[in-house]
Amino acid sequence: MSSPAATETLPAATPAAAHIFTTVLSHGPLTRLEVARRAGLSAAAVTKAVRPLIESGYLVEEADTGAGAHTEVRPALGRPATLVRVDGGRALFIGVKLTGDEIIGVLTDLCCRILLARRVPLAGRDPEAVLATAADLVRELLTEADGYGVRVAGLGIAVAGDVDRAEGVVRYSPFLEWRDVPLAGLAAAVTGLPVTVDNDVRALTVAEQWFGAGVGLSDFAVVTVGAGIGCGLVVHGRVVAGAHGVAGEIGHVTVDPNGPPCHCGNRGCVEAIAADAAILARIRETGGTEVAGTAEAVDRARHGDTDAREAYARAGEAIGRGIATVANLLGPARVIISGEGLAAYDLFAEQIREAFTAAAFGSAAQCDVRTRPLPFEEWARGAAATAIQCFITAPN
Amino acid sequence: MSSPAATETLPAATPAAAHIFTTVLSHGPLTRLEVARRAGLSAAAVTKAVRPLIESGYLVEEADTGAGAHTEVRPALGRPATLVRVDGGRALFIGVKLTGDEIIGVLTDLCCRILLARRVPLAGRDPEAVLATAADLVRELLTEADGYGVRVAGLGIAVAGDVDRAEGVVRYSPFLEWRDVPLAGLAAAVTGLPVTVDNDVRALTVAEQWFGAGVGLSDFAVVTVGAGIGCGLVVHGRVVAGAHGVAGEIGHVTVDPNGPPCHCGNRGCVEAIAADAAILARIRETGGTEVAGTAEAVDRARHGDTDAREAYARAGEAIGRGIATVANLLGPARVIISGEGLAAYDLFAEQIREAFTAAAFGSAAQCDVRTRPLPFEEWARGAAATAIQCFITAPN
Ligand SMILES: [Zn+2]
Ligand SMILES: [Zn+2]
Repeated sequence: MSSPAATETLPAATPAAAHIFTTVLSHGPLTRLEVARRAGLSAAAVTKAVRPLIESGYLVEEADTGAGAHTEVRPALGRPATLVRVDGGRALFIGVKLTGDEIIGVLTDLCCRILLARRVPLAGRDPEAVLATAADLVRELLTEADGYGVRVAGLGIAVAGDVDRAEGVVRYSPFLEWRDVPLAGLAAAVTGLPVTVDNDVRALTVAEQWFGAGVGLSDFAVVTVGAGIGCGLVVHGRVVAGAHGVAGEIGHVTVDPNGPPCHCGNRGCVEAIAADAAILARIRETGGTEVAGTAEAVDRARHGDTDAREAYARAGEAIGRGIATVANLLGPARVIISGEGLAAYDLFAEQIREAFTAAAFGSAAQCDVRTRPLPFEEWARGAAATAIQCFITAPN
Repeated sequence: MSSPAATETLPAATPAAAHIFTTVLSHGPLTRLEVARRAGLSAAAVTKAVRPLIESGYLVEEADTGAGAHTEVRPALGRPATLVRVDGGRALFIGVKLTGDEIIGVLTDLCCRILLARRVPLAGRDPEAVLATAADLVRELLTEADGYGVRVAGLGIAVAGDVDRAEGVVRYSPFLEWRDVPLAGLAAAVTGLPVTVDNDVRALTVAEQWFGAGVGLSDFAVVTVGAGIGCGLVVHGRVVAGAHGVAGEIGHVTVDPNGPPCHCGNRGCVEAIAADAAILARIRETGGTEVAGTAEAVDRARHGDTDAREAYARAGEAIGRGIATVANLLGPARVIISGEGLAAYDLFAEQIREAFTAAAFGSAAQCDVRTRPLPFEEWARGAAATAIQCFITAPN
């Protein structure tokens, strides 16, 4: 293990300092004045909090070149203002996404920029096998990190399912068939790193909130389509975790009580209509023909196969209704649709939009529904984002 | 106008002081130590903030008699700790609920205890007529308040529909058929009081959060059943308002896409099945008989009329599904069912619970679903709670 410096955290002694650092991280470079305005703090408080962060190298100063978001409050006269920005290279992080088939790992900098991405197949799904493969991958990334001469300050792990982040426990993972695995403790023991474990969709939502299409929004949702239909919610500026660990289950919003059975025990859930497997099942059922997989289904639909087109249209309608339900209950400013299923977006985009518009109540229809492609390493980047979040907000 | 002292607010100069006052208001009497623990602040900060609040009479001290919630951290030895509590009689508030038929008004103390309640029928629904009737009612309550020798510090008005609290504007009220009425400004001009205008369900949710079944919970929902089906959501300790003014629209969660038409333009919404009028329509439709109103429908169902019983059972199932959707998306710790429709609760309680349990995903089923009767003046009390909230948190 090359970087065991697990005890060092950001020298942000107070919640206000962590808030200031996060503001610069998401919006920078900024003048101190703009940081104060955006963070809702006094200029004196910002100046005081920024000093140790500059001394320790996490923030750096640069001259205002007149470009970027900060120009809005640029002084009209006098010497150019100094900007502060995060030195992304000051610390590195590893993000790991576990699926039922493989592990994806990324090495990122403090600004969550991906430096390296790796994927390795899983030999088995039991916790010991997965942990051994993950530890090898982390070791490989730590070795690569040595080349940067910067320590790795944290490891984030993302898993689909019911994850208790505070306790670091995977309560239930359907793809890995795990129950109550104390993953954070196990991974910390084998890697020597501080470990954050979170649900994969929530982790992706953190990445969008801090570094993506959710920056600056206090209320937004991320909806992922693909093998499952997931949803991460940010309300009042914080990711919703649920009092009992369940939240964002858009996949189990009922679209049609007489629809196809869902693994949750109900019928006609969004996931039972719009998940990859549900689309394939529908094509088989209506067409009476076999479909090998999603690639073939997409191909058939693009070549005009009526059954395939109908299955995707139906999926789009279900997703649009699910998004409308989120909008009607929470009124987010934006919904970001992402996930592997976006590869087929041309086949259901129109139906998503139509169903959303029809089912959105009043001004909830004003919600900005947009798509965002999701490269395979993005899930792992979400995991790295949770590690960065913990690094910044961990109590000192 | 007897109490025009509209400029005086609570001497809580900082957000921390407002937070401390709110903690004592919701949980008191408490020792300073307990206030500090619950508010997450230092004992020194609490002592400093409490002093001017005691000097101005908003907080009072009393000896610890050993009873109540505070005993948990009572010192084992030494002189008894001093408790602080809010002096409810230090300021009075008026809450007004507008419906399509009548205005309900209450006079409350600072602890939101109802001192007097009044209801007056509406002569017309145009803003001028409603405002004139409301102003008369407020004047009557102000006169009564004179008898207490304490000033009225704020007026809260609650209306069903799309209300922009920050702007004080009723964007759309279906029952009053109002659009874009700047109600806060108009009411302040005729009453001389600081005015808060909010959606009625959100106002009721504030009352539950500060003084009711939501005290101490950071995530809960209030679901109201009756003429409409509404929902107030508290997430991360704050009432959800929606980026575009729409939130909590549980009434328009789809239960059955082939169900009865809803006024929102869709079919089979919770409200199209479970609102009072929908239940009556269903009884008429299935039984082919006339039903005069809700009282008759309830009576028939309690006497075994099959059509009436089925209509209520169906309503219960729709409400249960709607609550499960809220639980699956947000994972609240508790859902409080309230509203006039609760008078018929024996007719659909079982179906609500069964449908909720069937549709709740995983541990979301652990959510504490409970009922809370809603006397007619409770809506107006919700309005008073929003006025108290503004009084405490208003910038000084
Ligand atoms: Zn389901
Ligand atoms: Zn509707």
